[in-house]
Amino acid sequence: MLEKIKLPTTRNGKATFHLLLRAAELLFLENGYHKTTVADITQKAGVAAGTFYVYFPSKISLYQHLLTDISHSIRKEIAEKIKDKDSRRDKEKEGIKAFLEYAVKNPHMYNIIWESFYIDRALFRDYYESFSRRYVRGLESALKTAEIADVDLEVVSYILMGVTNFVGLKLILDLGDTPKTIESVVDTIMHVLDHGLFSKK
Amino acid sequence: MLEKIKLPTTRNGKATFHLLLRAAELLFLENGYHKTTVADITQKAGVAAGTFYVYFPSKISLYQHLLTDISHSIRKEIAEKIKDKDSRRDKEKEGIKAFLEYAVKNPHMYNIIWESFYIDRALFRDYYESFSRRYVRGLESALKTAEIADVDLEVVSYILMGVTNFVGLKLILDLGDTPKTIESVVDTIMHVLDHGLFSKK
Repeated sequence: MLEKIKLPTTRNGKATFHLLLRAAELLFLENGYHKTTVADITQKAGVAAGTFYVYFPSKISLYQHLLTDISHSIRKEIAEKIKDKDSRRDKEKEGIKAFLEYAVKNPHMYNIIWESFYIDRALFRDYYESFSRRYVRGLESALKTAEIADVDLEVVSYILMGVTNFVGLKLILDLGDTPKTIESVVDTIMHVLDHGLFSKK
Repeated sequence: MLEKIKLPTTRNGKATFHLLLRAAELLFLENGYHKTTVADITQKAGVAAGTFYVYFPSKISLYQHLLTDISHSIRKEIAEKIKDKDSRRDKEKEGIKAFLEYAVKNPHMYNIIWESFYIDRALFRDYYESFSRRYVRGLESALKTAEIADVDLEVVSYILMGVTNFVGLKLILDLGDTPKTIESVVDTIMHVLDHGLFSKK
C-alpha cells in the first residue's frame, strides 16, 4: 500500500528532502492537497523540478510520509512524557497533556491528518486504527492490574481519542466563549475520567 | 456572512431545489467540494444551467445550506428522542444514541461537515461552537439541579462531542478489529460517564 520513498543518505540529500517536506506541508495547508502540484512543491522548496522524484515516487507518497512523521512524533512526545509515571491514571493524564501540548505547538497537524479522509480513506483508517491498537495495548495492561474499569477497551480508545482531538481543536481554534489553558482542560478531562460526569463528586 | 439563498415556493421549484442539493451532495462526496463546479451540479441534477442561480448565489451558499440542513436534522433527531426523558443522564444517553443512529444512517455527514475545515474555517467554527452552546445550556440546567459534576461545562461539551464523533466514525467506517452495535458502544460510553474510567466499578 505504502509506496516506497528513497530516504536521503548525504547531508545535502537530507537538506533537500526536508526542504521538499516543509514546502509540501505549507502548500497543503494553504491550498489543500489536491490543488498542490509536484511542480509547486519543487518551486517552493527552491530545488530543481526532477529532484522530487529522487526521493518520492509520487505526491501521495510524500503525503503518506508526512502523515507517518506526525504519527511518530506525537507518539514520541507522549512516550517521553509518560515514561516516568507508574499508574495508568497518571500515564493517561500526562499522555493527554502531551497530546494537547503537541497540538497547540503544531496546529497544522489536524489539517494534514484529517485531509486523509478526503485524499485516501484507507490512510485515515490506518492512522486511527493503529493509534487505537497501541492505546488498547496500554489499557489491557491496566485492566490486568485492575487499574481501570472492565469495559470494551477498543471503544474506550475511540472515546479517549475523541476527547483529546476535540478538546485539542477547541484549544487551537480557540473555539467557544472563554479561552482555556491546557492545565484547566486536562483537569476537567481527568475529573470525568476519574469520577464520570453524573457522579456527585 | 451567510449568503442569502432564495427558497423555492412552488412545487416545481421545491423539486428542482432538492434535485440541486442532492446532486451537489453526491458530487461533493465523490469529488470533493473544490473539484465540483456549478455546471457539474446542474448537469447531475438534470436541470438547465441557469437554474442554479435562481436559488443559490454561489456554490458556497449551497454548501452552507447543506451544512445548516445537517445541523438542523441532527438536532431534530436528538430533540425528538430525548423529549420524554426526565434526568439529564437519560437525556444524554438517548441523545448520544440518536446521534450515533443518525451517523450510521447518514454516513456522508462527516464528509460534508468536516470538509468545512478546508472550505472555510469560519463555517467549521460556527458549526461546532453553536452545537457546543446548545450543549452547555442543557448541561447548565443539569448543574442547577445537581445532576452533574460541577466542572467546566464548555470543556465538557467538547469532551462529549469528541466522544460521539469519534465513536460514530468507528461505527460508520467499521474501524478496529471487532464490529460493534450501537447499543454496546452506548453502554461503554455511559459506563465512563457514570463512573469514569479509573473507578473500580
